[in-house]
Amino acid sequence: MNRPWLKEVLRRTLYPDSVAVIGASRSPRKIGFQVVYNLIKDGFRGRIYPVNPNAEEIMGLKAYPSITSIPDEVDVAVIAIPAEKVMRALKESIEKGVSGVVVITSGFAEVGRAEEERELVRMADEAGIALLGPNVVGILNTDHNMNLSFCPSLPYRGRITMVTQSGALAIGLVGWTWANRIGLSKMVSIGNMAQIGFEEMLEYLGDDDDTETILLYMESLKEGRRFVEIAREVSKKKPIVAIKSGRSQRGAKAAMSHTGSLAGDVKLYDVAFRASGVIPAYGLEDGFDKALALHLQPPMREPNLVVVTNGGGAGVLASDFAEEYGIPLRDMPQDLERDVRRAISPFGSPKNPIDLTGNAYKEDYIEVLDKVLSHPWVDGVVAIYVHAAITDPYEIADGIVSIVKRYPDKPVVMSMIGGREVSIANTWLRDNGIPVYPSPRRAVAAASALYRYGEFLKRVGM
Amino acid sequence: MNRPWLKEVLRRTLYPDSVAVIGASRSPRKIGFQVVYNLIKDGFRGRIYPVNPNAEEIMGLKAYPSITSIPDEVDVAVIAIPAEKVMRALKESIEKGVSGVVVITSGFAEVGRAEEERELVRMADEAGIALLGPNVVGILNTDHNMNLSFCPSLPYRGRITMVTQSGALAIGLVGWTWANRIGLSKMVSIGNMAQIGFEEMLEYLGDDDDTETILLYMESLKEGRRFVEIAREVSKKKPIVAIKSGRSQRGAKAAMSHTGSLAGDVKLYDVAFRASGVIPAYGLEDGFDKALALHLQPPMREPNLVVVTNGGGAGVLASDFAEEYGIPLRDMPQDLERDVRRAISPFGSPKNPIDLTGNAYKEDYIEVLDKVLSHPWVDGVVAIYVHAAITDPYEIADGIVSIVKRYPDKPVVMSMIGGREVSIANTWLRDNGIPVYPSPRRAVAAASALYRYGEFLKRVGM
Repeated sequence: MNRPWLKEVLRRTLYPDSVAVIGASRSPRKIGFQVVYNLIKDGFRGRIYPVNPNAEEIMGLKAYPSITSIPDEVDVAVIAIPAEKVMRALKESIEKGVSGVVVITSGFAEVGRAEEERELVRMADEAGIALLGPNVVGILNTDHNMNLSFCPSLPYRGRITMVTQSGALAIGLVGWTWANRIGLSKMVSIGNMAQIGFEEMLEYLGDDDDTETILLYMESLKEGRRFVEIAREVSKKKPIVAIKSGRSQRGAKAAMSHTGSLAGDVKLYDVAFRASGVIPAYGLEDGFDKALALHLQPPMREPNLVVVTNGGGAGVLASDFAEEYGIPLRDMPQDLERDVRRAISPFGSPKNPIDLTGNAYKEDYIEVLDKVLSHPWVDGVVAIYVHAAITDPYEIADGIVSIVKRYPDKPVVMSMIGGREVSIANTWLRDNGIPVYPSPRRAVAAASALYRYGEFLKRVGM
Repeated sequence: MNRPWLKEVLRRTLYPDSVAVIGASRSPRKIGFQVVYNLIKDGFRGRIYPVNPNAEEIMGLKAYPSITSIPDEVDVAVIAIPAEKVMRALKESIEKGVSGVVVITSGFAEVGRAEEERELVRMADEAGIALLGPNVVGILNTDHNMNLSFCPSLPYRGRITMVTQSGALAIGLVGWTWANRIGLSKMVSIGNMAQIGFEEMLEYLGDDDDTETILLYMESLKEGRRFVEIAREVSKKKPIVAIKSGRSQRGAKAAMSHTGSLAGDVKLYDVAFRASGVIPAYGLEDGFDKALALHLQPPMREPNLVVVTNGGGAGVLASDFAEEYGIPLRDMPQDLERDVRRAISPFGSPKNPIDLTGNAYKEDYIEVLDKVLSHPWVDGVVAIYVHAAITDPYEIADGIVSIVKRYPDKPVVMSMIGGREVSIANTWLRDNGIPVYPSPRRAVAAASALYRYGEFLKRVGM
């Protein structure tokens, strides 16, 4: 369903100046406590109005018996009260003139109460407001210092926005973003998707300046055809990665009992994703890995991938996965191979995958990467460093950063194989825009995402 | 080739009392420096004899002009001198009466000098000594405090032994074992496998009390049929995981240039692994993940896997991967489902994958896992914790440890999804014998390895 007015009220819902929390509580185990607490704790700079008929004050804020009794304007109402009271709260929120409601309360379509849920949407649509949920964790917006959710903290700050059908994953993955330094602009839990689903979120995010890359955790779609249309347009502007779960028969059944949604035929999704430029990811790690690569590196428009490694075994593994992930390594042009041969140790290999051997220092990586990246035949590079006896991973990382920066149009991803010795080097690479992974497999999977996105852009003439 | 005498001299080579380093050096960039340095630094308790005709003393140790001039017995000679001098060093080592030689020097079969390499083997065989290499990093034996290699440190101590055809990976992965707390008894680099290959290592490791699980990084085999025979016997005693690389056409070509070996038809390897109970792994992470699971948990003899999660989305992902990895989830017996239903929240799902919802506390995990693990239908469990708003991962981990300990015959693996919040909980689980992974995908892959090994044991009547 097309709602041309929705984009603007959704924007307001994601960036509100004032929030009412219906069901605000003084009891720390209640969600209505956590939402108020999180808004305060994580530094929301707008106004917060706890709504609770049995309290005068909550966490130092004046409480109101109802949303309509709040004397100021309210942009968003969070609803965290029992399901049977949600409709009345929505009515009053509309009366108050909010732009959006976030219905945290569960117990609607996912437990068979679909008619009640449809009624909520009818009311929201009639009033022209945004309705997130029901059955959501909330909205985390690092660009607005806003933790409008019961998730204990904001994610690591950045320019990726994640939209998830699973609220539990929203909470679990916030810690993940910190541990892996994957920066998010927003994490939005869309739960039952009664009104706002992936289609509506993408429509909004396509024009959201704070979002450069989009990551979806998806069990089902409301409107497949509409999703394809919207995603195709958004993909032209920014990459979309989708972790589609419920791909197996059993998984689809589990998705049905989880979100009450029809996970659908996996082949249909594959076709839909290909048509719309959405990059498929297989599981959570793969999703973040690919989103990070697409976020930090340019797309790879043609399939000529070169692997440069200081460890032959790692090069063999990379070759295997390149073939498996649809970007098989090819023979390099003779002039490039000759140039590389002159630059490397006689024990190494100048053929793709290029093996510099374990004696390769910073200067060797720089020299060979310079030759490779400057050659017009080369479309992308996976560089691998296996921690070696006498080389320093920081030095190598520094060298790689310096040379990669000179070729901003050629995508490069890295794998650093080692333990804590390589962790600071990894940070340095990441902070300088080079996605880095602990294994050749994951680096090559990330490169395959860059290629798949480049292929799409070429196909649509961009 | 069968060498009945080899096992004993190989044992002596892995656990020597005295080592001569031919090519010992005072120059820190030389491998002959590093080997002496590492033996001392990492606490080797045997005698160390540097051999160098141009030095009186190296790192405080008396140096000898040749191995034959050492006045005491020598168990192992490490050879780290230019290729053309290796044969003479081997001759003298044999004369001295060593049990084994470790030929670090490269530049033999891998660069076309196959005849010279065969001559080394002929000499070693005639003398009845073990020959590791050429082209190896060396031997790391944590059970003997012995870093007989140019790898900068010993791995994290444990009961897994890794045998690798790639020396670079040996070095790179030592740090990995510390970062991921995957304990190794030994890391043995077998390089060109002129005499000692996977076949010989397995024959030895089958009876090595310090080794409970074996992990191989393999590009090729010397004798496929013999490998299957040996691996099949060893697999009956302890699990073997193999990362076979060079599976793709391009990867096989790269392996040829890397170790000069014929990676062979991937289908043949699949058949060989299945026949011999070897568990295939796809890449480095998967290899360590599976080795860890097989090391810590009993095999899973029948295919009835149950997933218990507090996050529905994670359960859907686990279901997908269970199907993909060959252990699809099945409907649980009605009595079990009924029991589970009584124990969980009405918003949860008592069907496999069991969803406890985000409100599940330690007690809920304990109660449901108790019902599941005690039911005779259940053969194995993947337990998932997605970090939730109000629960404590340490508490949950502690609860899971307590209940899993009561069912030592039922395999359990875990996935803890979160960031630093779950890292201490992960340590607690790991230290209590429960393998834990950051994603459902990796946990399910590990469970599939337990099932594949159980299937093998059943097939061979064990």
